[in-house]
Amino acid sequence: MSGTLYGVGVGPGDPELITLKAARLIGAAEVVAYPAPDSGESFARSIAADLIPEAAVEVPIVIPMRVARFPAQEVYARASEEIGGHLAAGRDVVVLCEGDPFFYGSFMYLFDRLAGAHPVEVVPGVTSLAACAAVARRPLVARAEMLSVLPATMEDGARRARRGQGHAAAIMKVGRHLGRVRAAGEAAGALDRAVYVRHATLPQQEVMPLSDAPDAAPYFSMVLVPGNDPYAAS
Amino acid sequence: MSGTLYGVGVGPGDPELITLKAARLIGAAEVVAYPAPDSGESFARSIAADLIPEAAVEVPIVIPMRVARFPAQEVYARASEEIGGHLAAGRDVVVLCEGDPFFYGSFMYLFDRLAGAHPVEVVPGVTSLAACAAVARRPLVARAEMLSVLPATMEDGARRARRGQGHAAAIMKVGRHLGRVRAAGEAAGALDRAVYVRHATLPQQEVMPLSDAPDAAPYFSMVLVPGNDPYAAS
Repeated sequence: MSGTLYGVGVGPGDPELITLKAARLIGAAEVVAYPAPDSGESFARSIAADLIPEAAVEVPIVIPMRVARFPAQEVYARASEEIGGHLAAGRDVVVLCEGDPFFYGSFMYLFDRLAGAHPVEVVPGVTSLAACAAVARRPLVARAEMLSVLPATMEDGARRARRGQGHAAAIMKVGRHLGRVRAAGEAAGALDRAVYVRHATLPQQEVMPLSDAPDAAPYFSMVLVPGNDPYAAS
Repeated sequence: MSGTLYGVGVGPGDPELITLKAARLIGAAEVVAYPAPDSGESFARSIAADLIPEAAVEVPIVIPMRVARFPAQEVYARASEEIGGHLAAGRDVVVLCEGDPFFYGSFMYLFDRLAGAHPVEVVPGVTSLAACAAVARRPLVARAEMLSVLPATMEDGARRARRGQGHAAAIMKVGRHLGRVRAAGEAAGALDRAVYVRHATLPQQEVMPLSDAPDAAPYFSMVLVPGNDPYAAS
């Protein structure tokens, strides 16, 4: 009988923002997999570190930084084979996912390859989006407002951001695109209400007006533009 | 010395989707407040019920169904006075929020009135959006895609939904607007990939293609339109 593949959201960074269900599944895991950089610590693993049983088999999924799409897909193909082997042998596998598994996550690459042959359960987690709004103390979206979530890496991101004028927007994965995002915010007349957040809920967290943000931002940073609803700004 | 106001997300419905932090704060609460209908059970309270200490003072914030904006604001004004009294007396107050406090939540009405005078901490929670994607087994948004979140109550919701064609969309609070949402999905050519979810993560949860959804939907229901990215559809 096949084991179950669990895609488990571990939240934005603070280990206390793991759900009770995720904590239970991680604490009982026989096999734990997680994305990892080619050097240094896995962020997803670091969030859940205190919960991983000592006896668990660990499967780091090593994604070389700045690789093109197809080599990355080879990495997931190989990881799916390894994880599929554990599942076929009847062992449950818990995949740790930063934030939420299906919100800009890499879990979908394993899901696509394994869900046909094995039972899969997805355990939603707290997204970086909710975390950033909480630490920025800005209600993100209210009542009849629309929210646009767009990655800064999107080629026409600036244009699309302008379209959402008056409504709330969140720009993800800001990184080296910060200058362009700030210019778009200025052009849209949203610079006064836009907030820059990095490393939300972690000890090194920082929140500042977008106008004060540095030009070089880490990958895990976000720009929030609360809506114009009188109740969407604090 | 003032107590602290905690706005605590309790997640989408499954009590196990409460975070460790929320569980700790609720379990230690002296005063617990939550939105409640004028008859029947509070949904937020029902999610956290097993964690609320017996000795806690409970403050239901009773919102009459279908009231206009200004009477509802009177309800929050009165609740803020009551909660402000507890805070001024040095008692912490935990406000239970369905999903996440700042994602279409009513917590912002208390936050606006009390954050100037008292310490406030917002604890993010799992949104209904993440929960619906998880139970529908549909990666919500991938890589360089945009996600539009829009309430079905938005007057020009159908038009805006069409604009997001090719990208992912989530239509919240579907309720009695389901027929209109389905027509908009059909007009946008998205009916084949749109999914209807109600009561996600609760025992009575249902997931079905939008084309099969009934005309009358409960308030806590959602339509997900995954993006066109080859990795955004399962």
